Amino acid sequence: MSVQLNPTEKTRLKRLPKRGHFDRHTIYPILDEAFICHVGFAIEGQPYVIPTGFARIDDDLYIHGSAASRMLRNLASGIDVCVTVTLIDGLVLARSAFHHSMNYRSVVILGKAELVTDFDDKNRALEAFTEHIIPGRWAEVRWPTELELKATSVLKLPIDEASAKIRTGGPIDDDEDYTMNVWAGVIPLSLHAAAPINDEKLTDGIRVPDYVSNHSQNRES
Amino acid sequence: MSVQLNPTEKTRLKRLPKRGHFDRHTIYPILDEAFICHVGFAIEGQPYVIPTGFARIDDDLYIHGSAASRMLRNLASGIDVCVTVTLIDGLVLARSAFHHSMNYRSVVILGKAELVTDFDDKNRALEAFTEHIIPGRWAEVRWPTELELKATSVLKLPIDEASAKIRTGGPIDDDEDYTMNVWAGVIPLSLHAAAPINDEKLTDGIRVPDYVSNHSQNRES
Repeated sequence: MSVQLNPTEKTRLKRLPKRGHFDRHTIYPILDEAFICHVGFAIEGQPYVIPTGFARIDDDLYIHGSAASRMLRNLASGIDVCVTVTLIDGLVLARSAFHHSMNYRSVVILGKAELVTDFDDKNRALEAFTEHIIPGRWAEVRWPTELELKATSVLKLPIDEASAKIRTGGPIDDDEDYTMNVWAGVIPLSLHAAAPINDEKLTDGIRVPDYVSNHSQNRES
Repeated sequence: MSVQLNPTEKTRLKRLPKRGHFDRHTIYPILDEAFICHVGFAIEGQPYVIPTGFARIDDDLYIHGSAASRMLRNLASGIDVCVTVTLIDGLVLARSAFHHSMNYRSVVILGKAELVTDFDDKNRALEAFTEHIIPGRWAEVRWPTELELKATSVLKLPIDEASAKIRTGGPIDDDEDYTMNVWAGVIPLSLHAAAPINDEKLTDGIRVPDYVSNHSQNRES
């Protein structure tokens, strides 16, 4: 599959086209840094947007949930889906209210999801979900049983019709506003990991593993 | 309008109903803490999910954008919309891969948006957007001109059919897994504001205002 995705009528940005990106080198790091996606689908014309965890394996995005999940049952029936991932990078404070903005990186993926039924493929997806949350975790946890795999629906969405949208940098004000006596700039935002909290039922003597303690440094790019 | 919202067939949680909340006291603080929402709508069956800024005034949620925005033009035509707001609070690391989870607070609002046309109402919405990004900002920036208000579309969505979903606390493992020699617990996550960055073109001698320096303490609840 080529690195460059072709913009379609649906993914091409109608406005501010310079913020649009269609290459996997731009899209994948955004997906890999985010913890959740927002899954959009419509049932009888009513749209729903549901936040959920996800993972990427190569050129596919995977989501999962209970086999009883209404959302997953609907998506598995082959309806159109839109998966959007957004990272907020900063608040952009301009001199005029009108030019306030945010720095962000977002990805929109359109397509149809398909149910993953093969147990090895499902297991591989669960490994990807676990490693997506925190790399290093899969090696030390108990792996899914056959019963757990049966109780889990895994859906695969090809990353084919997709685009990224990115805003970076400071505020852009109107020429005549630069003389105003008001502070302007950016407040950088990032998702911050605080010190891990032991489970109440943690067996005495089990220490926080390095991949957990180092998590915040690993994630923030 | 009552504080308690009636769950509808569409907002009632089908699974894990104990995570569902239908009162404004739960829903509004989640909306007010978040910087962006994800707006879902369908055009000819194709769902789209677009991240955007927003603000709440009383019992209405407002979004805005360029009058040329395709999304806003579609929404203004009175189609069904779903606005979802999600805050990620932590990674929940269980002893089994299957029970890994995330702590989060999310709100889903369903309804139809309507275009705000009155200039005073639009101006009030722009004030709310600015104050939503950072309280205190409106008082010192240049306010919108009539031309800017004309170039801006503002949409209002009543917060009527809405629900919140919340997960808190540590991992819940299967009984037999508690004896495993593996760390379990929560990595708390929160959106962190770093030191503000001056605009390159900032006039010499303008200092960062207190409401900006104190931003991170104000926001994190």
